[in-house]
Amino acid sequence: MQRIHGGDIYSFDKDVLDFSINTNPLGIRHEIRAAAISAISDMDKYPDRKQGKLKAAIAEMENVNPEHIICGNGASEIIFALVSALRPKKALLLSPSFTEYEIAVDTVETEKVFYLLREEKDFEVGEDILDRITPDIDMFFLCNPNNPTGRMIEKDLMKRILDKCCENDTCLIIDESFIEFSPKYKECTMVAEAEKYDNLIILKSFTKMYSFPGLRLGYGITKDTDVIERLEKVRPPWAVSNIAESAGIAACGLTKHPVNTRTFIKREKKKICLKLSYLEEKGLRYIESEADFILFTAPDVDGKNLYDLLLEKKILIRRCGDFRGLNGSWYRVSINDEKSNEKLTRALKEIYS
Amino acid sequence: MQRIHGGDIYSFDKDVLDFSINTNPLGIRHEIRAAAISAISDMDKYPDRKQGKLKAAIAEMENVNPEHIICGNGASEIIFALVSALRPKKALLLSPSFTEYEIAVDTVETEKVFYLLREEKDFEVGEDILDRITPDIDMFFLCNPNNPTGRMIEKDLMKRILDKCCENDTCLIIDESFIEFSPKYKECTMVAEAEKYDNLIILKSFTKMYSFPGLRLGYGITKDTDVIERLEKVRPPWAVSNIAESAGIAACGLTKHPVNTRTFIKREKKKICLKLSYLEEKGLRYIESEADFILFTAPDVDGKNLYDLLLEKKILIRRCGDFRGLNGSWYRVSINDEKSNEKLTRALKEIYS
Repeated sequence: MQRIHGGDIYSFDKDVLDFSINTNPLGIRHEIRAAAISAISDMDKYPDRKQGKLKAAIAEMENVNPEHIICGNGASEIIFALVSALRPKKALLLSPSFTEYEIAVDTVETEKVFYLLREEKDFEVGEDILDRITPDIDMFFLCNPNNPTGRMIEKDLMKRILDKCCENDTCLIIDESFIEFSPKYKECTMVAEAEKYDNLIILKSFTKMYSFPGLRLGYGITKDTDVIERLEKVRPPWAVSNIAESAGIAACGLTKHPVNTRTFIKREKKKICLKLSYLEEKGLRYIESEADFILFTAPDVDGKNLYDLLLEKKILIRRCGDFRGLNGSWYRVSINDEKSNEKLTRALKEIYS
Repeated sequence: MQRIHGGDIYSFDKDVLDFSINTNPLGIRHEIRAAAISAISDMDKYPDRKQGKLKAAIAEMENVNPEHIICGNGASEIIFALVSALRPKKALLLSPSFTEYEIAVDTVETEKVFYLLREEKDFEVGEDILDRITPDIDMFFLCNPNNPTGRMIEKDLMKRILDKCCENDTCLIIDESFIEFSPKYKECTMVAEAEKYDNLIILKSFTKMYSFPGLRLGYGITKDTDVIERLEKVRPPWAVSNIAESAGIAACGLTKHPVNTRTFIKREKKKICLKLSYLEEKGLRYIESEADFILFTAPDVDGKNLYDLLLEKKILIRRCGDFRGLNGSWYRVSINDEKSNEKLTRALKEIYS
């Protein structure tokens, strides 16, 4: 399994325009930056291992019990810790989806079963997923909306998936790292269900909506406190730094930020998609997305692929050939600020005309 | 296994005097603080997954190949990742020693064998340790100087331990998190050997010498790049935050800081030990230490233990009853600033007179 991720700006020129990451194009709010700077004065103290204040803030934001929250050094750390704690024998994964689920289950030699998302169905999860949740499946990783496809599973189907998981004692892990970018966020989130069902774990990340991937902070929600206890046993103490904790607490107070972000993303995504649709006759095809990124397939030009062609124009996009189930003609671009988005669509127009 | 650690100031009054942690009493150097603050401006970027600049800085400081370095979210994260990657069937551990080695090997159901350090030998590791390194031992965790005893294994014995580990294909992990506090640092460190022997891994922490436990940063050194590769596979990407990376790079440049620290620790430790020795007739006995902390045993007074008695005086020390091999009469105190050290010894005098 190759391990490629967006945001590797360290391998490129400093002035490259980065469309490879999925963080909020509105950037960091000054309240978060101020909280991080002020927390520097506590860097000589050990972090609070119980993350009391942070959990209280998340609990209030998500309207859940603080005792049902797990905090981690990024959501990715929680993925690995969950796998290490629960040691699934057999796991169901989407293909394509976020690669770290597969890398994580590989660490405990889990048997993997893939539900293949099909291009001809716009990579949508269909009702046939229910037949794949069998009693031998211990763990099911769902990313909603899915990375890199941007497709969302609607609440009705998701509830049936959860019911099927309950029937079969399958631990359902829904990664909602991108859900708040969607206008359907409130209808589709399963956070409230995590307060009701024992075998449901929701993962969320501060990295994306609040744009601080450099600090590392994610969280999980589950009412199964036994899972939380087992998880704490398999990982090092002090997973979350003082600075990340303070930034997270500040982020929880910014209730308008996700709302403004959704409005912005919706408008900019529409504009980009419109311009991408003009290139359909050139063989470019995009997938409708509920996230802050767009997956599309695009042909090579004179033997050169689009990734290299855009890099020549100092634009970095995410090649998707390393995702299981996608070939090298697939790319992912994030929604960026207005000017940058225009640069991207102009560059695409130049390349394909 | 109980999981108690020092530095849990979050459970106490803010004005408690903390002797429970082991960080440098000289505090954070302004260069490190400045680097951390300046890195806040990069919090919206993903960290460099390869930690290129940080590894280069550590390599120069330690005089090792940068490709032989692993960086982690604290040394504790590397302990867990090493165990997860190497999955030892049988591990040798000291008792008492840092609890996280045991908690880590428990995650992969390793059989544990303990070498008991004896009070009557001042908790020294003897030559009989060599007989305990048998071909069935896959992994041996050594902390040098040891936490919580402060005892150092001299180079001659350590080399024989390493030779025996090589003979038996045992992976020797030496945690040198506290070694730079010792005047014997240069004679005793095994970093140079880690560049020569395949089955030796050195762990070090920025937390202690550079006093930034709130940021989380540690590293490992091994010439076995296969181990490094396996380790990277079992853990999440982006283990180290941007802020920790910048602080670490700044720390690597502060060559005089460890020297000044050793001078300070030596002097203050001598003063504290002298005052502790006055209390020997009251039943208090301390262990000579090469680290920045002192282990001692002390009797209860009128049915109250010393931890509680000191807490009444707003002094927090480390109870050691949770360490395997120590009973509740053992305590650990760090070397603090001059004034605080005097407060501690004065309080002890009051309690026992």
